[in-house]
Amino acid sequence: MKSVYLEEHPWKIIESQFDPQKVKASESIFSLGNGAMGQRANFEEQYSGPSFQGSYIAGVYYPDKTRVGWWKNGYPEYFAKVLNAPNWIGIDVSINKQPLDLHLVEVNHFRRELDMKNGCYTREVQFTLADGTEGQLKSIRFLSLNEGELGAIHYTVEILKGQAEVEITPYVDGGIKNEDANWDDPFWKHLETFNTGNFSALRSSTLKSNFDVCTYMYTELVSHDLAPEVDESATKVSHRYTTVLQAGENLTLHKYGGYLQSMNHQVADLIPAAQQLAQKAAATGWEALQKTHAQAWHTIWETADIQIDGDVAAQQAIRFNIFQLNQTYSGKDARLNIGPKGFTGEKYGGSTYWDTEAYCLPFYMATKSETVARNLLQYRYNQLDKAIENAEKLGFRNWAALYPMVTMNGEECHNEWEITFEEIHRNGAIAYAIFNYTRYTADESYIPEMGLEVLIGIARFWAQRVSFSTPKNKYVMLGVTGPNEYENNVNNNWYTNYIARWCLQYAAQQAEVVAKTHAADFERIQRKTTLTKAECKQWEQIASQLYLPYDEAQQLYLQQDGFLDKELLPASELPPNERPINQHWSWDRILRSPYIKQADVLQGFYFFADDFSADELQRHYDFYEPLTVHESSLSPCVHAILAARLGNMADAYRFYLQTARLDLDDYNKEVHEGLHITSMAGTWMSIVEGFAGMQIQQGILSFRPQLPKQWKAFTFKILYKKAPLEVQLTTAGCQFIWHGKAPISILVDGEQQTLQPYTA
Amino acid sequence: MKSVYLEEHPWKIIESQFDPQKVKASESIFSLGNGAMGQRANFEEQYSGPSFQGSYIAGVYYPDKTRVGWWKNGYPEYFAKVLNAPNWIGIDVSINKQPLDLHLVEVNHFRRELDMKNGCYTREVQFTLADGTEGQLKSIRFLSLNEGELGAIHYTVEILKGQAEVEITPYVDGGIKNEDANWDDPFWKHLETFNTGNFSALRSSTLKSNFDVCTYMYTELVSHDLAPEVDESATKVSHRYTTVLQAGENLTLHKYGGYLQSMNHQVADLIPAAQQLAQKAAATGWEALQKTHAQAWHTIWETADIQIDGDVAAQQAIRFNIFQLNQTYSGKDARLNIGPKGFTGEKYGGSTYWDTEAYCLPFYMATKSETVARNLLQYRYNQLDKAIENAEKLGFRNWAALYPMVTMNGEECHNEWEITFEEIHRNGAIAYAIFNYTRYTADESYIPEMGLEVLIGIARFWAQRVSFSTPKNKYVMLGVTGPNEYENNVNNNWYTNYIARWCLQYAAQQAEVVAKTHAADFERIQRKTTLTKAECKQWEQIASQLYLPYDEAQQLYLQQDGFLDKELLPASELPPNERPINQHWSWDRILRSPYIKQADVLQGFYFFADDFSADELQRHYDFYEPLTVHESSLSPCVHAILAARLGNMADAYRFYLQTARLDLDDYNKEVHEGLHITSMAGTWMSIVEGFAGMQIQQGILSFRPQLPKQWKAFTFKILYKKAPLEVQLTTAGCQFIWHGKAPISILVDGEQQTLQPYTA
Repeated sequence: MKSVYLEEHPWKIIESQFDPQKVKASESIFSLGNGAMGQRANFEEQYSGPSFQGSYIAGVYYPDKTRVGWWKNGYPEYFAKVLNAPNWIGIDVSINKQPLDLHLVEVNHFRRELDMKNGCYTREVQFTLADGTEGQLKSIRFLSLNEGELGAIHYTVEILKGQAEVEITPYVDGGIKNEDANWDDPFWKHLETFNTGNFSALRSSTLKSNFDVCTYMYTELVSHDLAPEVDESATKVSHRYTTVLQAGENLTLHKYGGYLQSMNHQVADLIPAAQQLAQKAAATGWEALQKTHAQAWHTIWETADIQIDGDVAAQQAIRFNIFQLNQTYSGKDARLNIGPKGFTGEKYGGSTYWDTEAYCLPFYMATKSETVARNLLQYRYNQLDKAIENAEKLGFRNWAALYPMVTMNGEECHNEWEITFEEIHRNGAIAYAIFNYTRYTADESYIPEMGLEVLIGIARFWAQRVSFSTPKNKYVMLGVTGPNEYENNVNNNWYTNYIARWCLQYAAQQAEVVAKTHAADFERIQRKTTLTKAECKQWEQIASQLYLPYDEAQQLYLQQDGFLDKELLPASELPPNERPINQHWSWDRILRSPYIKQADVLQGFYFFADDFSADELQRHYDFYEPLTVHESSLSPCVHAILAARLGNMADAYRFYLQTARLDLDDYNKEVHEGLHITSMAGTWMSIVEGFAGMQIQQGILSFRPQLPKQWKAFTFKILYKKAPLEVQLTTAGCQFIWHGKAPISILVDGEQQTLQPYTA
Repeated sequence: MKSVYLEEHPWKIIESQFDPQKVKASESIFSLGNGAMGQRANFEEQYSGPSFQGSYIAGVYYPDKTRVGWWKNGYPEYFAKVLNAPNWIGIDVSINKQPLDLHLVEVNHFRRELDMKNGCYTREVQFTLADGTEGQLKSIRFLSLNEGELGAIHYTVEILKGQAEVEITPYVDGGIKNEDANWDDPFWKHLETFNTGNFSALRSSTLKSNFDVCTYMYTELVSHDLAPEVDESATKVSHRYTTVLQAGENLTLHKYGGYLQSMNHQVADLIPAAQQLAQKAAATGWEALQKTHAQAWHTIWETADIQIDGDVAAQQAIRFNIFQLNQTYSGKDARLNIGPKGFTGEKYGGSTYWDTEAYCLPFYMATKSETVARNLLQYRYNQLDKAIENAEKLGFRNWAALYPMVTMNGEECHNEWEITFEEIHRNGAIAYAIFNYTRYTADESYIPEMGLEVLIGIARFWAQRVSFSTPKNKYVMLGVTGPNEYENNVNNNWYTNYIARWCLQYAAQQAEVVAKTHAADFERIQRKTTLTKAECKQWEQIASQLYLPYDEAQQLYLQQDGFLDKELLPASELPPNERPINQHWSWDRILRSPYIKQADVLQGFYFFADDFSADELQRHYDFYEPLTVHESSLSPCVHAILAARLGNMADAYRFYLQTARLDLDDYNKEVHEGLHITSMAGTWMSIVEGFAGMQIQQGILSFRPQLPKQWKAFTFKILYKKAPLEVQLTTAGCQFIWHGKAPISILVDGEQQTLQPYTA
């Protein structure tokens, strides 16, 4: 059954009915972002129905005082919280003194579209007011990809029947409170209001974190020659335009606005720079700006697009995922990262999870550029000091680094002991990303310049985190939480032990490589870290003796010690009305159950594909997948990829669907809170690493292409060694079009092929 | 080194210097209570230095909205919180218009005493005011044991030098806020103020829980013939008396006050009943009231006292423990229980922990009466419905009962999943207390009347809580927290499995007994619970197959699965500056460590002494005690008892000291928050069950008396089969003086003795 809420379209998201129950969901789905700022698709004009107003500025946060039931040593006292920012999009309208409020007027026609090809959001509404006046409004909005600090709105109110006095009042408003605040504190302080001609600006600063932000607007009536009447209140400034319209006449406004902030400007320059930017925009003109912006999106799509033939819902979904990923993170600024809700909501504090390294890096690396991928790595390098501090807080010494579970500025932003202190496998993903990047890009400079220090800090953490078990005569890792957060404080989580072992080996090995190939770097790093050969040897020794739980009888790696003591009923036998279990079961019941929230052992099989035979993969997939409830948005994609590797395209496609339309079809009934941005990269991986089977095997780019039977064909591009490689998979077979300058060797279904540079 | 803060004295706690740094600690130590109400030893007059003002009414609570960092299904939304009550003790004094505030005046002499023999608190202060006036105040306060709703203060201000206008203003104040409040909400609503003559009263009600409380006072100047000038403000009413005193003259006030509350009175009667009570008190007169009150204490001491010869510090300490236990709980009201801080502080919500059954019951049972002990059991019986609801919340069915970890009214008051959902052994202690009571008192009526229903609910919980492990071919218990809270979410905690097994067997066995001996009761219970023989059989079957972790090599029961994988360094090797570890280590480090907060396996050896040989006890004591950090106040007593059983009197005495003077010597640097009431019962147990070795063995009262070498003798009494048995242990041997009517048989060091009734 097709949803009537959102129409299917290859390039657009379309809502063509007004349903107040869906307003919050649509505010999430139609969100806009340009990497530097973004906001939910709130109506410009006043709306008194249920709504979640949200505007966000990349990198700007508030350190909210921690709220816990019971304090544990090691918890951070403050959390960096995603911050709801001043509103620059607001445009109030009143017609014959009645506010235009879609919750109060009669809506005769409603349509909104998110045009993903051009990065543009439009809305058309026809309405009848209480006094019988009929009218329509049309709004077009985009956030410039070219100018991160600039957004633009084209806003038209037309009278369709009757005559009316129309007042249109664009404003900027700094009096904003977070929905998500621990103690209901205000997060912003208003500092200054500035007005000149058609330009107005507020300067506000965040409390405690002291980000200075200028929120500005430049408004211009294009339908009438009217100057704005400027109204100022405590934290708000508005431009009022009033006129009388006859039926068929309209009032059209251009509004330019956005944020400039102190991460990028001197405080004293904020308002002047905003004024300059706004005036330049106005001089350029709305249409020209939009054209340049659309052009920037075309450039993105040129590489990032995946075309699917024969399945419009899938086509729409994959583009929605790619679109949102590009809205969230542009990769231009190594201080920023990919928040789990991007600019679409404020649930979860902080902006950076292990999602970035485990799920997002491959997408940005293959569709944007090495620089972007390297910026993501460098983000963690820049926060290494904080990771060391974090580990010290927990009792580790000697430059051991534990990266936070959730962070904005390098400090931990999460306070559940079983997660914050125990879900330490995140450290592994951060090291793995360095390996993954180096393997894919063949960039040999990152590790000597930055990566090795991170690897050393991480290896030191693992070396201290293990302990020696006399009965097992092995190193063990006690008290951890694996990727499957439905188990807490377990001993010897296989995935954690496996990736820890790998980290220790990889760090030792890379130290040796850097010592040989980049002597100067190595000397600098040695001075900084006091690394010795003996220490690397010790890492290797621990790694070689690190315990991995295994059941001989079934030839199975066990998720953790004692896993087989559970009653292993498949999830398919759970009563449907008890799913998802995390909404129906008490926490202890979940913990005692065998159910797996997201890939755990299988996450290791995904990362370390070369280490396991197809038989082993099949055996572990058959054992663990039936116990997996996929209640994390990050679960289906890994299973889609592994199912495809096993040639099980039915499963692969089923999992793909779960990830691709997660938000559009609102599987988890939570899209109103914002989108699942990071899992969107998993959707991309499901196609590229799943269906197309892309991997780097022994250093060689390889594919195992399989076409889901529901599709006629699909095509995508990746950037490989700085050049595009196009992959076209049809029922007839797989075509590779290589846009590099020199021939390359790839593996296709295990067979070597040489691709010659494409010539038209 | 002796502390100079509190002087040693066999019957008194004495502080003879004024140290503002100690005010909060002394407020705890000198607290008064009479089972129905109590308060910290706050000064009557204004005090602007650091102080923790606290008055409490037994049974009156506020359901505070839960505060957690991350919500888990199954958490309660509200907690019953111990409630700071209106103040009835306040007496402001001003001399020549300057407030008498010990923080602001010069204190020349200061002494306070808690007279435990007579249940009376006195304070004497000499001071010099800024204007040179010298004076002294003397206050005597007690809370009547005979009238739970009555307290009395004798308050004198004398001028020593100069002449002064003295104003003395006793008041009652309902404008009280809790220090411990999750959201800073007000807990009280003021309803009414009533004044007539020397009597004033406030009526307030608690928000949400709607307890109506009348806080009253009756004031009377005994030195002068003056009527009070009554001042009323929003939530406060005061009586002002003003006069001029010459040097050597004094102003003396009697103040009677306290609380009447809606658990015990009709709301409309509260104020009239208070007035009647106050007038009766005033008519009786201060001295007569105090005499009757002291008499009531003498009666308590007659049975409860332990005399120690040759160690004043120990004598003072044991009396302090016994005194506070009697102040906290009188046993008259089955709706009340023994809060961990009694009336001395408000840390920890709720009033009832497993401490009651595991530690407190033996004390009250042996020093008060069967009725008191039975009231403690009945408290849980009355809350059985709530325990069933609580289990249902966690997914249990069919009348399974999980008693809350912390409670006031039967509902859970704690929100840490690892405690609330997993520290389920508390259910075992509640069943054990029924057994313990029945064994000691030989009362065969409690189980058929009430106890069996509780046992059934508890057995059903265990039967559902276990799961079957195929590899072990046994029932296992996954995901629990044992008594040692430094381990969370472990599998097969030995103590929990052991007591669960015992509960299943005991419930099945008692069902059989009741069926035979109390057919009518059994039929009623069957109707109510649908219990069948098959179900009892199933309990026995689960019990017989319940897994107990054991290490063959060392012949050791293991605290939990995998315990030997830890690095088992004895606690004595920990750096002293890292102790207590819960103040210095992160939570994950504590969890990974082998360190034991309080007796865990050994708690089982204490409860089920008959099940283990002396060798087994020695082996387990030698293994577990060195890993125990005793960071719970409930830890040393169990170890004292076990050490004594092993004949290790050096250890026994060392542990005894840790528990006996815990608060007086403030070992944990937290006495300012309140006293450790429930662990005080452990002190009593250390002497009676430890040094005197009292046990019921195979139904026979038995002793293994040992005198610590630091003492010359000790003597105590227990009520056994409703009559006092006096035990006198000297270096010469042990004497038993039996005040029952018929001879009894006891075991002394394993030898049977017959005690003849004592005749003078």
